Amino acid sequence: MPASPIRKLVPYAEAAKKKGIKVYHLNIGQPDIETPPAILDAVRKADIKVLEYSHSAGNESYRRKLVQYYERVGIHVDHEQIIITTGGSEAIMFGFFTCLNPGDEVIIPEPFYANYNGFAVAASVNIIPITSYIENGFALPPIEDFEKMITPKTKAILVCNPNNPTGYLYSRDEMEKLKQICLKHDLYLFSDEAYREFCYDGEYVSAMHLEGMEDNVVLMDTISKRYSACGARLGALVTKNKEVYAAAMKFAQARLSPPGLAQIMGEAAVDLPEHYFDTPKAEYLSRRNLMVERLNAMPGVFCPSPGGAFYAIARLPIDDSDKFCQWLLENFSYKNQTVMLAPATGFYGTEGLGKNEVRLAYVLNLASLTAAMDCLENALKDYPGRVKNISQQELMEK
Amino acid sequence: MPASPIRKLVPYAEAAKKKGIKVYHLNIGQPDIETPPAILDAVRKADIKVLEYSHSAGNESYRRKLVQYYERVGIHVDHEQIIITTGGSEAIMFGFFTCLNPGDEVIIPEPFYANYNGFAVAASVNIIPITSYIENGFALPPIEDFEKMITPKTKAILVCNPNNPTGYLYSRDEMEKLKQICLKHDLYLFSDEAYREFCYDGEYVSAMHLEGMEDNVVLMDTISKRYSACGARLGALVTKNKEVYAAAMKFAQARLSPPGLAQIMGEAAVDLPEHYFDTPKAEYLSRRNLMVERLNAMPGVFCPSPGGAFYAIARLPIDDSDKFCQWLLENFSYKNQTVMLAPATGFYGTEGLGKNEVRLAYVLNLASLTAAMDCLENALKDYPGRVKNISQQELMEK
Repeated sequence: MPASPIRKLVPYAEAAKKKGIKVYHLNIGQPDIETPPAILDAVRKADIKVLEYSHSAGNESYRRKLVQYYERVGIHVDHEQIIITTGGSEAIMFGFFTCLNPGDEVIIPEPFYANYNGFAVAASVNIIPITSYIENGFALPPIEDFEKMITPKTKAILVCNPNNPTGYLYSRDEMEKLKQICLKHDLYLFSDEAYREFCYDGEYVSAMHLEGMEDNVVLMDTISKRYSACGARLGALVTKNKEVYAAAMKFAQARLSPPGLAQIMGEAAVDLPEHYFDTPKAEYLSRRNLMVERLNAMPGVFCPSPGGAFYAIARLPIDDSDKFCQWLLENFSYKNQTVMLAPATGFYGTEGLGKNEVRLAYVLNLASLTAAMDCLENALKDYPGRVKNISQQELMEK
Repeated sequence: MPASPIRKLVPYAEAAKKKGIKVYHLNIGQPDIETPPAILDAVRKADIKVLEYSHSAGNESYRRKLVQYYERVGIHVDHEQIIITTGGSEAIMFGFFTCLNPGDEVIIPEPFYANYNGFAVAASVNIIPITSYIENGFALPPIEDFEKMITPKTKAILVCNPNNPTGYLYSRDEMEKLKQICLKHDLYLFSDEAYREFCYDGEYVSAMHLEGMEDNVVLMDTISKRYSACGARLGALVTKNKEVYAAAMKFAQARLSPPGLAQIMGEAAVDLPEHYFDTPKAEYLSRRNLMVERLNAMPGVFCPSPGGAFYAIARLPIDDSDKFCQWLLENFSYKNQTVMLAPATGFYGTEGLGKNEVRLAYVLNLASLTAAMDCLENALKDYPGRVKNISQQELMEK
């Protein structure tokens, strides 16, 4: 079981704070956006005598509400195609447990969300990474690259859309290509759509929008980012494939039920006014624009503008992103402040990639983000491991 | 992945209810005891702006509180030996993922909690059942039986104490025997102690009370039954083994954090007055006494009196417990009422066992429990598959 590359840095962040240095956390996807008070109020007002197990698939009332929510985003499902999970994490685990046998392979474009590794270890399956590149903003790799990696053990392709950690938003054309290859090779398409509400450029295309592959798609979802309710631990697995649903239900039954109070929040969230998302989305867009502009203005830095989610990957003129991120916490401060970033190495399955890249989560307000960019700009001037900006390819050859 | 033997009966219960028949649910461990209002109030009063991810091991404040709770039950641990989990279920899963490799074996006295099967499938490990018998109240099987089953793949023994489904409370002598065999063969002792507070006869001995095997014990715990808060989904994995702790933390980090609102409940629960448990414990004891007395007064029925938890297994004069439990829902009623029981077959790993046994959970008040016993008594008179009471051995030979 690999250690989380981000967690490794936590002790250095704690040490910096103990020295009185303010640390801007751009390293994790924990938004500062307020959880809608109405959904917390729903819990406060709930009349509960006995906090019982819910249905293993989640309260029927919540699943029926979610059907309305999905309808609004063009996903037509019924409540018996939804299993409420403990966060998106459990939805991903159930997908792995259900669709993959030990030793099976799931193809994932890299860089990818590092915790997929943990779920793969738990399910004893292998992740086969296919590299996407910063030069084209981490677009879907050519389908030929997928074809080359497909073996008899390949059972699924997983995409996160919009993407964590790249922020890339897959186009309709790319989603159609994924559909073709999944149908051709009879693969599941796992679609992690945690950031659906945060698309800034171009059209949001869900795997559930693709026609004629209903039995292949397993949607993994969560309210964590949508309503800034990460601590609720409430997600969903959605599939029209009856066999997958029935098998996933057995795992759901083994763990009895998803969290009860969180389901009250989730149900209330569907009743938030439709314009609810306008404010957080506008806020994230302003932050993205500021951050990407600042990054690209720094000498030797390249950051493609992400179309969705609240992450970006930037290439920096540095020798080693793990060393640099540690150095930021251990040896650097600017006006008694520093910034915590995630080394991109942890998001690649291929050893050696991401050494001159970092992931930044724009989860802080514009003032904090500006201060964090000031820190990074000055850090890049001071960092002893600064190199002229070289490509990933050159870096690997070194 | 096996289907839950209890869940199979749910459609029959629903159909009975649609016909207007009242169904007494003695089939599941969902208590009717009120969740302490004070712990729900703690959530209502919590000042939350952003419901953030907690620490992956759970809020430090909650873990420190739990240290106080454990101290009271004679378990001396510190907060860095506790990982807060999503229910006891996740604690069991983390134990399996962490201590067992795919193909490894865990020995469990049968009958055992059926969901262990689901977690074993998820972790690709094998459960090796060792039969305990109703004749001696499901006492720990002789240590020679364990010795016979140990292979190079055996990595752990799991006990649930007090036991679900048998209600058996392991004695200090039995716990010491388990310790000896675990030390001799270098096995983990997984100890599921969900029902710790409900011991009626004899002394409660935690695996954590055993001296000299600190590195072998992994405690799996939950607040579900303790505070009648099953829907909260809050448990804990506790171990003094640093390597196990570190490895379990990686799985905890992959799923980010346990439920946030539930942790507020859990923290408040430790501050309930010490006499809080007196009332539910007295209530369960009255129920046990009533139920066991009623059962043993029925011709051909044998039910050993369980020393703890809120379950009992009874041997009935029937041909097939699955058929009987379905018949109760489908073809029987008494005063327009019936009772739902769990066929014991689902709790045995050995095919064919439990065919003349059922599990009863005494989770209903005395009036309902009396009515449920009236139903069962009359059902046994009417049931067409009634047989003279024969032993399990004879039944298997048929």
